[in-house]
Amino acid sequence: MRVEKTEQLYEGKAKKVYGTTEETLCIVSYKDDATAFNGLKKGTIMGKGAINNRVTNFLMQMLEKEGIPTHFVEEVNERETIVKKVRIIPLEVIVRNIAAGSLAKRLGLSEGTKMKRPVLEFSYKNDDLGDPMVNDYHILAMEYATEEELSVIKSYALKINEILSAYLKDANIELIDFKLEFGKTTDGTIVLADEISPDTCRFWDTVTGEKLDKDRFRRDLGGVEDAYQEILKRLLGE
Amino acid sequence: MRVEKTEQLYEGKAKKVYGTTEETLCIVSYKDDATAFNGLKKGTIMGKGAINNRVTNFLMQMLEKEGIPTHFVEEVNERETIVKKVRIIPLEVIVRNIAAGSLAKRLGLSEGTKMKRPVLEFSYKNDDLGDPMVNDYHILAMEYATEEELSVIKSYALKINEILSAYLKDANIELIDFKLEFGKTTDGTIVLADEISPDTCRFWDTVTGEKLDKDRFRRDLGGVEDAYQEILKRLLGE
Repeated sequence: MRVEKTEQLYEGKAKKVYGTTEETLCIVSYKDDATAFNGLKKGTIMGKGAINNRVTNFLMQMLEKEGIPTHFVEEVNERETIVKKVRIIPLEVIVRNIAAGSLAKRLGLSEGTKMKRPVLEFSYKNDDLGDPMVNDYHILAMEYATEEELSVIKSYALKINEILSAYLKDANIELIDFKLEFGKTTDGTIVLADEISPDTCRFWDTVTGEKLDKDRFRRDLGGVEDAYQEILKRLLGE
Repeated sequence: MRVEKTEQLYEGKAKKVYGTTEETLCIVSYKDDATAFNGLKKGTIMGKGAINNRVTNFLMQMLEKEGIPTHFVEEVNERETIVKKVRIIPLEVIVRNIAAGSLAKRLGLSEGTKMKRPVLEFSYKNDDLGDPMVNDYHILAMEYATEEELSVIKSYALKINEILSAYLKDANIELIDFKLEFGKTTDGTIVLADEISPDTCRFWDTVTGEKLDKDRFRRDLGGVEDAYQEILKRLLGE
């Protein structure tokens, strides 16, 4: 596909997004920059950008085959991918199978406690406010999303959880929790956007319980690069 | 009704609850103690116990007539009331019509912003955890309530909001937000429990916007006792 980058539209903590010569397409460029605790902790994870690009594209293509529309169009190079242009719905959609991180702390659960059913949480995407947790009533009253959008997002999020959990289990990876973002394309279709990577998921080795995700960076556990590399290897055999 | 207090079952921040000679009944005794910020701020509001007892009983009887089951049975004296014995469902049910307090802060809204529709919030009642906000998924996964209980509670809370808002408007009181608790009686009926008072509601004068509730204590605004007295007067003409 002959699509050229034009101006930078946006720079986030882990990615840049560029406009392109095609009005309905963007190019995402993954960075090695890592942040945690709403930007309070900063660092670099060597090779992360390339790994997250590959892992995200691999998982999005797999989800497309299973009937989940995504923003993925085509991988351009190691760190860059052509995606559909979307208006991001300003919600972080968090799915949790096992208590960890903020959920464990807030509800007084030991990390590792299996939830009796998958838990969905929504945060309003707003760095200044610290991405506050919101419920359906906040979302509708504040018009972060419409009732119909919310219903589609919930059903996709739960279906993605089922597909990913089963898929990852075969690679000896337990899907503890993960964060999704959805967007609306220029024609109004809701698609999965953003990324699915060790930055946005908690992955534990099913046998040893070893953490293979950004918690190694957040909690200074060491072996950060190796963990990202291990996920790439288990999923893409590389 | 000949019901005698027996042993104290529970002492909360603003009330004591006693067992009685009738197995299915309790006696609630309202205190003048006031606390805020999860117990960090402590004080006394003279006459509060008697006012909250009277106001709660008055509003609960009114709600009963409108079809909302409550725990109210009979006022015993100035501070004490016979209520049905319930197992409290461990949720604070918060209804918000206008942004104030924690909602205004969390979502970056000016206090006084009218919500486009009433907002329901749930907190898990747990002092050690600071009453964390929870959504439907947390409630069901943690079994704080069943799906059926949650559905009944939501419908009662929204109906109570409609009834109370209209009723208070006639007394020149704007119902900004309020907190409810529900319980299950020994025969399994879900009833409104706890209290409805200036401790648990935000009441603003509809004309002047003056605060007539516990925010006068929380925020050191002065005139705390007068505000409680004013609510009693507007509602019961006393």
